[in-house]
Amino acid sequence: MKQVKVAILGASGAVGQELLSILAERNFPVSELKVLGSTRSAGKKIRFRNKDYKVEQAKPDSFAGMDLVLSSAGGSVSRELAPHAVKAGAVVVDNTSAFRMDPEVPLVIPEINAEDIHKHKGIIANPNCSTIIMLVPLFPLHRLARIRRIVVATYQSASGAGARAMQELQAQSKQVLDGKKPTVEVFPHQIAFNLFSHNSAIGKEGFCEEETKMMNETRKIFHDQSIRVVATTVRVPVFRAHSEALFVEFEHDVSVAAAREALSQAPGVSLVDEPERNYFPMPLDASGKDDVLAGRIRIDPSIEHGLALFVSGDQLRKGAALNAVQIAEVLFPA
Amino acid sequence: MKQVKVAILGASGAVGQELLSILAERNFPVSELKVLGSTRSAGKKIRFRNKDYKVEQAKPDSFAGMDLVLSSAGGSVSRELAPHAVKAGAVVVDNTSAFRMDPEVPLVIPEINAEDIHKHKGIIANPNCSTIIMLVPLFPLHRLARIRRIVVATYQSASGAGARAMQELQAQSKQVLDGKKPTVEVFPHQIAFNLFSHNSAIGKEGFCEEETKMMNETRKIFHDQSIRVVATTVRVPVFRAHSEALFVEFEHDVSVAAAREALSQAPGVSLVDEPERNYFPMPLDASGKDDVLAGRIRIDPSIEHGLALFVSGDQLRKGAALNAVQIAEVLFPA
Repeated sequence: MKQVKVAILGASGAVGQELLSILAERNFPVSELKVLGSTRSAGKKIRFRNKDYKVEQAKPDSFAGMDLVLSSAGGSVSRELAPHAVKAGAVVVDNTSAFRMDPEVPLVIPEINAEDIHKHKGIIANPNCSTIIMLVPLFPLHRLARIRRIVVATYQSASGAGARAMQELQAQSKQVLDGKKPTVEVFPHQIAFNLFSHNSAIGKEGFCEEETKMMNETRKIFHDQSIRVVATTVRVPVFRAHSEALFVEFEHDVSVAAAREALSQAPGVSLVDEPERNYFPMPLDASGKDDVLAGRIRIDPSIEHGLALFVSGDQLRKGAALNAVQIAEVLFPA
Repeated sequence: MKQVKVAILGASGAVGQELLSILAERNFPVSELKVLGSTRSAGKKIRFRNKDYKVEQAKPDSFAGMDLVLSSAGGSVSRELAPHAVKAGAVVVDNTSAFRMDPEVPLVIPEINAEDIHKHKGIIANPNCSTIIMLVPLFPLHRLARIRRIVVATYQSASGAGARAMQELQAQSKQVLDGKKPTVEVFPHQIAFNLFSHNSAIGKEGFCEEETKMMNETRKIFHDQSIRVVATTVRVPVFRAHSEALFVEFEHDVSVAAAREALSQAPGVSLVDEPERNYFPMPLDASGKDDVLAGRIRIDPSIEHGLALFVSGDQLRKGAALNAVQIAEVLFPA
């Protein structure tokens, strides 16, 4: 088995922590580990496979000798450091939005377009979490009858904004229950017992960055520039799994039975669709799971060839860290 | 000013309580008040305008001499007792789903179809809360360019399931924060830090009752059988305001400016649409307000003549009690 020298960039963040536990869980052949972070987190201790590692400050010369860099330290850090890592001979699997729409950089969900991994020129981009959670269950349906349009409304957890945002949801909830005024610091608005439009910048057409990512990344991952997507992305007071209401229009009819069959066999998807007991995908059930849960499948009577469904997936796992490790597994096969 | 003898059916419930405070707030000319409820709530004391009233058990002969019955005691109670109230000479404004789709019964949102009130034969139905919160802001847009299709995903608060459901959200949230296993009693699934498909019965086409109501009631209220609606309804851990992501297709183009202008002038709507500071409708802001908040207005680039928006409205006020009192105000003008 090939042994891999791995650097984690952003090791102390929510995704970084999840990357380390998934590498351990899946017995990824890490022969050497370097944990890198900002000035703020340099010196912190990080545990991996019963051993402590000290976070080093990430610098352009941090990557000498590394085979693989898993980066989740934010777009500007990736933009600055990824080229240095590539120059040093490493392959970078980047969890940020920095390179996703770069035509030279493959954007990959292994269940969908694993073959794109091999076209890389040093950097492979991990899609946005909401895109991954949407497309893993939609791909088997796309193969059945070609998707023409997706309307999606999201229910996104605090984890998508990092560990501090999860702590803020917890702290604010306690404050509200205690009758105190909640402290608003990480998110722009109170998240406890509230919800709000996704806190990313709004572009001139009125869509926030999170929505634009879902709309653009879908076409790149599916290699189909004709798919139309419209998204409304919303933060909800949930800790770590994203949910999405999907309304999909196909080129041809897809029956509920055919959709169920396709989803029950698709890699990375668990069918959760029990109308008798009103049991469908929920973020609580998706948390900590590798699979995206998909269900509430029904014919959309308001349009031709339409299907509605509901999905939930762990934002930190399949939405980020797991997908990155799956890409690394293709790069460095056992 | 006409003096009105009012009976409240379901007075101790969440909507009943809100009905009483709205009648007081708006100086509705109540000359006599009767508070009615189930065996369970009979004997309870209810306060109205600094006076205590004892809840009487609701029976077929409870309505003698009453002018107006405001009913929010559940569909089966309304189905049984409303005809007796009508026989006794009262007009019933019914908050349940019992008579909404009855062709003999007007289904009214006063900002939209107040003229239907006068066609009543003793019963006037108050629409479903999610329908009201969706249609108040959509009606001024429908008048601009005729709505052809609505795709809606809801974010519904605990209040829609009554006072006990709101208490359950509070109790479960405390349990989760204390590291305890939450007690699931009122809702079928944990609501704290979770969300799930609306807990109403699923029909044979896969839609739950809440969704079917939104789809059918829209056509009746707009007097337009050709409007197509598809809904996914979801419960979220929010106390008392519902939010909705709306994707609307019109017969003709509607510009963002025209939509903003129409919404800023529409009765019952507050425009909350500030992309510069990422400030849009939120349930926390909508709670306790009469107006439905509408914003995040943008052109849907995935379809011709499409517009996307986001709305939040107080489920107990405009979604239920306020709408019923507004109907009563038309029935008994000052």
